[in-house]
Amino acid sequence: MAHSIRDKSKIVSRVNRLKGQLDAFAKAIEGEGDCYQVMQLLSSCRGALNGLMGDIIEQHIRDHIVEAENKKVATDSGEELIDIMKSFWK
Amino acid sequence: MAHSIRDKSKIVSRVNRLKGQLDAFAKAIEGEGDCYQVMQLLSSCRGALNGLMGDIIEQHIRDHIVEAENKKVATDSGEELIDIMKSFWK
Amino acid sequence: MAHSIRDKSKIVSRVNRLKGQLDAFAKAIEGEGDCYQVMQLLSSCRGALNGLMGDIIEQHIRDHIVEAENKKVATDSGEELIDIMKSFWK
Amino acid sequence: MAHSIRDKSKIVSRVNRLKGQLDAFAKAIEGEGDCYQVMQLLSSCRGALNGLMGDIIEQHIRDHIVEAENKKVATDSGEELIDIMKSFWK
Repeated sequence: MAHSIRDKSKIVSRVNRLKGQLDAFAKAIEGEGDCYQVMQLLSSCRGALNGLMGDIIEQHIRDHIVEAENKKVATDSGEELIDIMKSFWK
Repeated sequence: MAHSIRDKSKIVSRVNRLKGQLDAFAKAIEGEGDCYQVMQLLSSCRGALNGLMGDIIEQHIRDHIVEAENKKVATDSGEELIDIMKSFWK
Repeated sequence: MAHSIRDKSKIVSRVNRLKGQLDAFAKAIEGEGDCYQVMQLLSSCRGALNGLMGDIIEQHIRDHIVEAENKKVATDSGEELIDIMKSFWK
Repeated sequence: MAHSIRDKSKIVSRVNRLKGQLDAFAKAIEGEGDCYQVMQLLSSCRGALNGLMGDIIEQHIRDHIVEAENKKVATDSGEELIDIMKSFWK
């Protein structure tokens, strides 16, 4: 069974805001934006994406490992988390 | 004078691809996507954004610090880079 | 009850190797080492420390959340992990 | 000519403090330290090492790129920085 996600509409709103931030970055690239402004805009996008990633991972830890319906699910969800997290400490 | 960016259309294409990846993530959130798939999609977005950030920073180092038109510009661009990079090592 | 760590002697060996890498960095700083070599040495230290951090976190997920002796322990260990991981996605 | 580093003794002091933090971590691993304390200690080491890396990179940008004695040195130092920084955005 798939593990669904809580607060779907909030997450989708955050994705839409992030897409808006990316548009602002692309517009600065195409327009008169200087390199510093461009880097600041992209840095904000990066912060927003990292924050979203953190919240999704927190939810995974709480809902799909700690509150797993059985041991097999907890084990699988734990290995999934380890797999995803490898990119953070490489 | 603003420091413009090279390869604008390539960068804008990458932003558009990233927005497409974010849409796939949002769709997985809204639909049947399980948490692992959702985390993998967001992890790919993060990789794409970090890659883009890296390339923008490389361009800033080469074009606006090393190849700066004068010492004042190199100094300012160096301080801008330091400011942006602080988020990476905090 | 404290949750102990597996493979203690291996971890301590890695810490000792990392201390040796830090000594090599300090020696390069004090001696004739140029800035590039110095940055490479410190970058290796960073890679070693991140790898160690990753392994400790993996062990925490497997042993203290997935294999927790009861639900209370799993919940507490999950919150501990979330607390530690915040520094990775900030 | 090698590019030397400023504030050598301060940097070496920070390395020595970091080695002390690593010893505290190793002691917690060997002793009664529980996993959370152990992760906190290692997380502090990681913060200290990232802070040191950041300061070394800042110095490289200011002294060896912006203030390079000539264009060739600035170019080489810029490429060195790009090489070192790749590990941050991968």
